[in-house]
Amino acid sequence: MIVVMKQGATDAQIDHVIERIEQLGLRSHVSRGQFRTIIGAIGDKQPAHQQILEALAGVERVVPIMKPFKLASREFHAENSVVEVAGVRFGGPEISIIAGPCAVENAEMMERIGRAVAAGGAVMLRGGAFKPRTSPYDFQGLGEDGLKLLRAAGDRLGLPVVSEVLAAADVELVGRYVDMFQVGARNMQNFQLLKEIGQAGKPVLLKRGFAATIREYLMSAEYVLSRGNHNVVLCERGIKSFETEVRFTLDVSAVPVIKEYSHLPVLVDPSHAAGRRQLVPALALAGIAAGADGIIVEVHDRPEEALCDGPQALLPEDFRQLVDRIGRLAAALGRGLSRPSSQQPE
Amino acid sequence: MIVVMKQGATDAQIDHVIERIEQLGLRSHVSRGQFRTIIGAIGDKQPAHQQILEALAGVERVVPIMKPFKLASREFHAENSVVEVAGVRFGGPEISIIAGPCAVENAEMMERIGRAVAAGGAVMLRGGAFKPRTSPYDFQGLGEDGLKLLRAAGDRLGLPVVSEVLAAADVELVGRYVDMFQVGARNMQNFQLLKEIGQAGKPVLLKRGFAATIREYLMSAEYVLSRGNHNVVLCERGIKSFETEVRFTLDVSAVPVIKEYSHLPVLVDPSHAAGRRQLVPALALAGIAAGADGIIVEVHDRPEEALCDGPQALLPEDFRQLVDRIGRLAAALGRGLSRPSSQQPE
Amino acid sequence: MIVVMKQGATDAQIDHVIERIEQLGLRSHVSRGQFRTIIGAIGDKQPAHQQILEALAGVERVVPIMKPFKLASREFHAENSVVEVAGVRFGGPEISIIAGPCAVENAEMMERIGRAVAAGGAVMLRGGAFKPRTSPYDFQGLGEDGLKLLRAAGDRLGLPVVSEVLAAADVELVGRYVDMFQVGARNMQNFQLLKEIGQAGKPVLLKRGFAATIREYLMSAEYVLSRGNHNVVLCERGIKSFETEVRFTLDVSAVPVIKEYSHLPVLVDPSHAAGRRQLVPALALAGIAAGADGIIVEVHDRPEEALCDGPQALLPEDFRQLVDRIGRLAAALGRGLSRPSSQQPE
Amino acid sequence: MIVVMKQGATDAQIDHVIERIEQLGLRSHVSRGQFRTIIGAIGDKQPAHQQILEALAGVERVVPIMKPFKLASREFHAENSVVEVAGVRFGGPEISIIAGPCAVENAEMMERIGRAVAAGGAVMLRGGAFKPRTSPYDFQGLGEDGLKLLRAAGDRLGLPVVSEVLAAADVELVGRYVDMFQVGARNMQNFQLLKEIGQAGKPVLLKRGFAATIREYLMSAEYVLSRGNHNVVLCERGIKSFETEVRFTLDVSAVPVIKEYSHLPVLVDPSHAAGRRQLVPALALAGIAAGADGIIVEVHDRPEEALCDGPQALLPEDFRQLVDRIGRLAAALGRGLSRPSSQQPE
Repeated sequence: MIVVMKQGATDAQIDHVIERIEQLGLRSHVSRGQFRTIIGAIGDKQPAHQQILEALAGVERVVPIMKPFKLASREFHAENSVVEVAGVRFGGPEISIIAGPCAVENAEMMERIGRAVAAGGAVMLRGGAFKPRTSPYDFQGLGEDGLKLLRAAGDRLGLPVVSEVLAAADVELVGRYVDMFQVGARNMQNFQLLKEIGQAGKPVLLKRGFAATIREYLMSAEYVLSRGNHNVVLCERGIKSFETEVRFTLDVSAVPVIKEYSHLPVLVDPSHAAGRRQLVPALALAGIAAGADGIIVEVHDRPEEALCDGPQALLPEDFRQLVDRIGRLAAALGRGLSRPSSQQPE
Repeated sequence: MIVVMKQGATDAQIDHVIERIEQLGLRSHVSRGQFRTIIGAIGDKQPAHQQILEALAGVERVVPIMKPFKLASREFHAENSVVEVAGVRFGGPEISIIAGPCAVENAEMMERIGRAVAAGGAVMLRGGAFKPRTSPYDFQGLGEDGLKLLRAAGDRLGLPVVSEVLAAADVELVGRYVDMFQVGARNMQNFQLLKEIGQAGKPVLLKRGFAATIREYLMSAEYVLSRGNHNVVLCERGIKSFETEVRFTLDVSAVPVIKEYSHLPVLVDPSHAAGRRQLVPALALAGIAAGADGIIVEVHDRPEEALCDGPQALLPEDFRQLVDRIGRLAAALGRGLSRPSSQQPE
Repeated sequence: MIVVMKQGATDAQIDHVIERIEQLGLRSHVSRGQFRTIIGAIGDKQPAHQQILEALAGVERVVPIMKPFKLASREFHAENSVVEVAGVRFGGPEISIIAGPCAVENAEMMERIGRAVAAGGAVMLRGGAFKPRTSPYDFQGLGEDGLKLLRAAGDRLGLPVVSEVLAAADVELVGRYVDMFQVGARNMQNFQLLKEIGQAGKPVLLKRGFAATIREYLMSAEYVLSRGNHNVVLCERGIKSFETEVRFTLDVSAVPVIKEYSHLPVLVDPSHAAGRRQLVPALALAGIAAGADGIIVEVHDRPEEALCDGPQALLPEDFRQLVDRIGRLAAALGRGLSRPSSQQPE
Repeated sequence: MIVVMKQGATDAQIDHVIERIEQLGLRSHVSRGQFRTIIGAIGDKQPAHQQILEALAGVERVVPIMKPFKLASREFHAENSVVEVAGVRFGGPEISIIAGPCAVENAEMMERIGRAVAAGGAVMLRGGAFKPRTSPYDFQGLGEDGLKLLRAAGDRLGLPVVSEVLAAADVELVGRYVDMFQVGARNMQNFQLLKEIGQAGKPVLLKRGFAATIREYLMSAEYVLSRGNHNVVLCERGIKSFETEVRFTLDVSAVPVIKEYSHLPVLVDPSHAAGRRQLVPALALAGIAAGADGIIVEVHDRPEEALCDGPQALLPEDFRQLVDRIGRLAAALGRGLSRPSSQQPE
């Protein structure tokens, strides 16, 4: 850390900062400029130290030098991590596509849409059973029944399944049915949930909060990693901005920034960013071109009957075409499409 | 709702929209302009209807007319609601001030700071026992032990206490110790937590998410209200913006907008918005001038030893002066300061 | 427009709104719901009408139905417009690449860098002579001398040139030297400049303001189009967001949204969005994958000596590789790279 | 400046950075930590140096220590500056109120509204003659005729006048009529205009751009100050955010931050932030409570006939009441209302 003293800070204030730095077990290093004194604090390990020094009299600000995440950083792990979920790989050279409906509605639709996305090129099946909805009057998901239907569809099709978990108390339950947990944007800083998943021993798809900086996002990944779960896949899904033409602004620059700072795989979710199906293919292709390792995308064959997010669901035929275009784009960039795993239906 | 058809929408598409509107139990009302056909859907009650209609072919967009919240709205309840918490009132003519440290650290500091804020004019004591921290390596709070210390300090000083609850599973535990739950910004859309608090029968201080629109915020209040808990106090605490001089941008306009749309009391939290104690008094005064019913503010007598958010904590003497200024400002606006309740120490 | 009356609006207020609508030369169409009356105003042409109706007593809000831009809209011109600049085409099937230094510094560097970008695949040369700089103490550009050097380099290499114009009063001067004007993000709502360029008879590269919605952006294009200049090329270059890892957040979704609403060509500028050269290739590729018609990118062979924006300039070799990757990506998407025009050096 | 080297930066890279720092006329100061080397560059005066060092190989980032503005800073001028405009003072203990219509429409309305705001407590008259409008089809102002009407109304009422200037080329013309220039939010980074006003020898009301950080804003003030014009009054008028209930989000925290960093007076403009008259009083009071030196507010007696921004104009009676409340609030905070100057009608 670098402690920047205020112009006119007294010698006593400077001495007190130095003393406090040393109490924290750090070395200090003073540099007096014409207008300001700057004090390096060397050896810092704890984010809390920044606030302690900022609270001291005479201090203008404290500039952290080290990034606050460790296990998530490329400095800790230089090579790309590859996360494997029941035979599907994320973070290797292949592009992996997760698809399915927003919510599990019933057995018949899971079967029908699952079949369509498998045929179209998906290697993992998604479907929400616990739905975080802005309105208390909206469909909240089928709960455990939904998980059973998702699992059954995945098994019949030979696709691993991913579904969202909303609370620490549900991790055990959800974990009984899914191959991969999803933590949604609204829960990116639900730290109790992150800790629980850190101990759950199953991979997690951790979506970026729609108002989280990339640093805050990687700190959330750090919660999971620091509890021993190294199978974290990240996912950019759009941030809040002043633009109202889209539901969220897909921050495509997050992909190369995360790749620079971290070894973890990154997907993009074009559906929640776009909010309208017409925009989904362009955003999906942009994400892949920016370096993402795959996409997670919503598909529904009868959007006007969907209990959730019908306007942003791709039709099965649109999905098939999109996968085809992603395949060509991936090839142009020296990558390929992930193929369905050899896992057989039970 | 108003369904705006695309320019060039076909008669069949228009007929299908009308049919679907009527299937939803609504009346339709068609208006054909020179360029576009517009279809009113009258009688809409469910937010889900908007997505169903948006998903139809030929539809450009759907404009909701009714606000999505009901119980939180002034149309439902025209007068200001007054929420009473162990004798302290929010939403009446008086300005109520909640103060205390960011986190409960130990018995001695709770006692010391509690005494200082009581002397300075606070009518409720705050202190975090479960802390949501961006970094897994930061102090996470004392948990139940912290709640006990907070309760003890409140009891000795005759002040009701408020503390944050992070998960639905903790509501029962936290409810044993506090007079008022706090739901923090990161949990504003933790819908399971909101549902649980809706059934817990104790007042809640529900903070605005830092990326939530006012509509989304009032929908979260609706979750609590719709489960039968009408004692909801709102709190603006800053939103994310591009400005980096403050931790969050206090959206002072949220106060009059919420007062226009809703009957619920509104506080402001100048501490988390500012991030630096120098800015706290100006933001507190601005919030009250904009019409807030009180503030919740962090105070610490030894900020450099604070385990959490030391730089934004007011010193006790600064707090006393701020309360004094709030009192004069409130009087100028025809309001007064809330006085400590008659509740006696046990 | 749809006028939504407040709940409880009086008959007199409703009648007054109807009267006012008819005074404006529009037809009115009343729909009384259970809670609110809604009045359609049919035939509206002028944006000003919205504010007039919003100002009336009893009106809650006015929802515009028609988009505010006309000449820029796909409804006015269904096919993609192709803008040709001295033989270089924007908006057709080919991807066109503009490159060059941030600022013209001297004859020798323009020559050197110009030669490098021409060899690397650029079909137009950029270079700033009038530089909008945040600080008054920074290099402000060479002015007319810079334009002469740019023109000379372009002529020798057979590349048309584009450069920024900062003020209406400079349009004539800059127009003497360039093939295409550039209007920068900070001037997107410099309406006097837009009007002047609307009459100047030369193509314009109009960048999006970093806080402009897509609608506001297309309204700025409308200023130019409505004065008779139809050769407008748009350019997404990043917007302000809360994220601090990049200089601006590239809003890649703007590309498909603009393509949906407008017939005008769209480029992306990855350099100003990224702010760091490492991120430029990913953003350039993302923009093309999202459907952009080309890029404008900064290149410098000695970034540490650059008088402006050295950290975001690609090295010539990086540029060459990027063009190669764009070419492969374009081919995968059924497009090709624009080849240098047949225009010969003078 | 502090140059943070990448982890793994080579000795040659470090040496090259030191060499470059010294070539720039600065002293270097090296500190080697366990993971990173940090190099202080002492004596930096020019913002450009940051980019030069950032462009060097092995550099992770450069952290500026000094604020980039000088003449605008409190370090340059510790006391509050008081700007006097024809007898009206900004920045002293008194609160000064500027009011008038959005646009000058005709002689009769200027007279009528001018009289109303003078009676209500305004000490300066505003009115736009050159209007920056998002749509080319909206009313663009009366130009010089408007300035004449504004001047005539001000003279008759004994009030100085302020009006917006849109372009460097108009400074001389506008300066013939007004006592104070206004530079609008859209022109905050129109650097040619700022330079011209820096030489014009008349005070300027410089509004904050709606996407400008406070640092960028103070740099724009620096453009004016550095040309010799020290009569700069700042004005917070709302920034872009994701919230759609208001036209712009009034960043009330900008007031204390600017007061901390700069000696210049600061107003708030509640009208453009709110966009709706109901919200204007709350925002005006919040701004004053946060420490602003006054407000500029739009007033119209027939909003539904206004050619511009009718929905946000206060009615004269609302204005009178607001001034009364500001007076009481100012008194509570130890300030008073500015009284009309002794300047007599001609």
